[in-house]
Amino acid sequence: MYPTDTIAAISTSVNEGGIGIVRISGPKAIEIADKIFKSIQNKSLADVDSYTAHYGNIIDPKTEQLIDEVITLVMKAPKTYTTEDIVEIDCHGGTVILRKILDVVLQQGARLAEPGEFTKRAFLNGRMDLSQAEAVIDLIRSKTEANMEVALDHLEGGLAKKVNDIRQDLVSLLAHLEATIDFPEDEIDDFESNELDNRINQVLNKVDNLLETSKRGKILKEGIETAIIGRPNVGKSSLLNALLREKRAIVTEVPGTTRDVIEEVINIGGIPIKIIDTAGIREAKDQVEKIGIERSEKFLDKADLILLVLDMSRELSKEDHDLIAAIKNKQAVIIANKLDLEAEVSIDEIKEIASDKPLVKTAAIDNQGIDKLEKVISDLVFSGDVEAQSQTLITNMRHKNALDRAKQSLLDVKETFERGLPNDFITIDLREALEAVGEITGDTLGEDIIDQIFADFCLGK
Amino acid sequence: MYPTDTIAAISTSVNEGGIGIVRISGPKAIEIADKIFKSIQNKSLADVDSYTAHYGNIIDPKTEQLIDEVITLVMKAPKTYTTEDIVEIDCHGGTVILRKILDVVLQQGARLAEPGEFTKRAFLNGRMDLSQAEAVIDLIRSKTEANMEVALDHLEGGLAKKVNDIRQDLVSLLAHLEATIDFPEDEIDDFESNELDNRINQVLNKVDNLLETSKRGKILKEGIETAIIGRPNVGKSSLLNALLREKRAIVTEVPGTTRDVIEEVINIGGIPIKIIDTAGIREAKDQVEKIGIERSEKFLDKADLILLVLDMSRELSKEDHDLIAAIKNKQAVIIANKLDLEAEVSIDEIKEIASDKPLVKTAAIDNQGIDKLEKVISDLVFSGDVEAQSQTLITNMRHKNALDRAKQSLLDVKETFERGLPNDFITIDLREALEAVGEITGDTLGEDIIDQIFADFCLGK
Repeated sequence: MYPTDTIAAISTSVNEGGIGIVRISGPKAIEIADKIFKSIQNKSLADVDSYTAHYGNIIDPKTEQLIDEVITLVMKAPKTYTTEDIVEIDCHGGTVILRKILDVVLQQGARLAEPGEFTKRAFLNGRMDLSQAEAVIDLIRSKTEANMEVALDHLEGGLAKKVNDIRQDLVSLLAHLEATIDFPEDEIDDFESNELDNRINQVLNKVDNLLETSKRGKILKEGIETAIIGRPNVGKSSLLNALLREKRAIVTEVPGTTRDVIEEVINIGGIPIKIIDTAGIREAKDQVEKIGIERSEKFLDKADLILLVLDMSRELSKEDHDLIAAIKNKQAVIIANKLDLEAEVSIDEIKEIASDKPLVKTAAIDNQGIDKLEKVISDLVFSGDVEAQSQTLITNMRHKNALDRAKQSLLDVKETFERGLPNDFITIDLREALEAVGEITGDTLGEDIIDQIFADFCLGK
Repeated sequence: MYPTDTIAAISTSVNEGGIGIVRISGPKAIEIADKIFKSIQNKSLADVDSYTAHYGNIIDPKTEQLIDEVITLVMKAPKTYTTEDIVEIDCHGGTVILRKILDVVLQQGARLAEPGEFTKRAFLNGRMDLSQAEAVIDLIRSKTEANMEVALDHLEGGLAKKVNDIRQDLVSLLAHLEATIDFPEDEIDDFESNELDNRINQVLNKVDNLLETSKRGKILKEGIETAIIGRPNVGKSSLLNALLREKRAIVTEVPGTTRDVIEEVINIGGIPIKIIDTAGIREAKDQVEKIGIERSEKFLDKADLILLVLDMSRELSKEDHDLIAAIKNKQAVIIANKLDLEAEVSIDEIKEIASDKPLVKTAAIDNQGIDKLEKVISDLVFSGDVEAQSQTLITNMRHKNALDRAKQSLLDVKETFERGLPNDFITIDLREALEAVGEITGDTLGEDIIDQIFADFCLGK
């Protein structure tokens, strides 16, 4: 399973940038780099110290054509990202240059790396476990700082530690049970009736604690699909603009085949709030928000969170009442907007017809009430969820599924035990639990699934 | 004019990537990096050798929060890109991480670099002249290899060498003329009547040679706006797809405010062929190319090159004749398409009504004739232009303008001389020529114009 060939890829984003990096990893990394790199001091990279950088030119050995002035960074095995020899070529960040340099590297015998293959090698070579490797891509794709912190915790082994603790418990239980089965003549004591139950409960408790973090983890990682709805002219686009001005998160670009889709993400208390139909809201503004309710209804189903905007300076219309009725069973916040104008509707009137929804008073045009809105959204989304800054969170569906299966196996253990079945049956369930948690760190996972996990990585990492 | 503060920026493209780089340059670069970087070996970056890399963590000094695992590359003045101390922080290539690291760097006393400010410092500190500095951004923005090679030549000082050669000639002429004016008693010989003329002609010749390259240079750098036109169903989108499949250049993304515009660029013999209205062509296909001629006409004016597609399997229609008439005065290629089907129109028939346009026979659906088309386009665009692989080309309008002005001043010198006016008058014109060419290398350029040039750079370079 240990890789032996040498791989290469463009490791920076392939867009216009000041600096770009082509990375080579494997036993021939230095030999290949040496063939195309001419150091200004005429040094061979084979002779230089690890973790040193060298200024010089990339020359195509076939044509002797100069390709770029670069700095090469040489890192020798085993203290590198992949634990293999690594050469990073820092070049000008143009797409044509990066591809040209990658071309000559490949011509000299490197193989084009698959997505995530550098990190996969770090995993296969034992430098990190699978939960840490998966954290690398989560870290890169983080949309908010809260999201980044969770991924960093995983990268630093926070999740691996908790999982290994659970595995340790299971291994120790299993060892004891198997001893009683294999060596009955040694008269190893069977568990007292409540001891096994207690110990299983302890493990179950640890699994549950982790599982409980998955709601928060999922929200932090994936964000909340949010629709801003309301009848024409209530101030939906003012609200969107106020939120974007104050809380705009990174604009994410999802590369498509012919055109990039850009989604507006607002960072509210660490929660990536993904605004659905931003274009619709903006567009609607240009047409004095002609579109109104029909469009809103389209997004009611899709959204995890609804922000319903009402205009307090006008009587509530039938449309407003319809929208309030429509969000009855949804997670929603009612925004009483245009408080800068004279009120025609009282807050009490709204509370009466929508008593179960949190209500925030705003004058979006002047940014008033936006902070309060943030607090209300955060409370609503994390309702009843105790915030724990430094807690390890489950953010990955794969991990959650593994823990769910582990939990089920542990419940099976309890049932088997209660039914008085022999220890052989209990060990089967325990082994299943052990296998399930081992999937998180990658110890008990098939090669094909591992391949699948890394295939979702970006190129060059 | 020498900068004294310390600047920092994200130097890689701020998109998802395996690796990202935050770069710091200036007298406090190492001190600032030391405050936020904790080396795994507990080394201070002040003590390390130049051109060495160090593994460790970025820690926010205020909160002591871990931000990322990174490699820092330390390069000490003066042998660096800017000639100042430089620290590059190689981190995970996520947007949130990159911004967070930049934040703490700025908090520790660096100033956010303006676009192009690193390269501007390289120029101001005398490491490169202005034509080399401008080549950096050309290199990064190159869309084809031909484009890249021209920029590399400039970066290596190819243009500076030619310009300095011209300046040398002018300085020597000027020195001689001024000597005859200032020290007439030394009896320094005035030029023989034809000597001055000869020497001016020599310089003029050098200026002209450079100017002559500017047509080719402009095409290589900026590309050719190209429209694919034709009546409905002649195979425009098949042709586009055939070209894209074989010759697609880098897809350029022009960042816009809310949505990115993507332009298809096809690399034909090094010429970036920019297809106008790609979306229109694709869209039209879905609607069985309903749109046809009205849309085509819209782009006739805008395009530098027209590819008119005719369907040889159908009789020529009035629309076809109209389009052939419409391209009469344009640079255009006629594409006789669908040769895979039975012909209803003969090539001779087309040649008769459009004798002055090159004609290429294709079956775009099967990629037939695409190579020939490439050759025809390349010949047409560079018509009469001798290809010279290693020649220095003028690609920059600013450089061309400066050479144009130098040329005019030299013609003025000739006229002044012919009219028998005294040497004082000649020196005025010569100085103007000298000043004009000096603008190319930046020796005679005002600070405001220099600022303007670098403002067009990308961030972090």
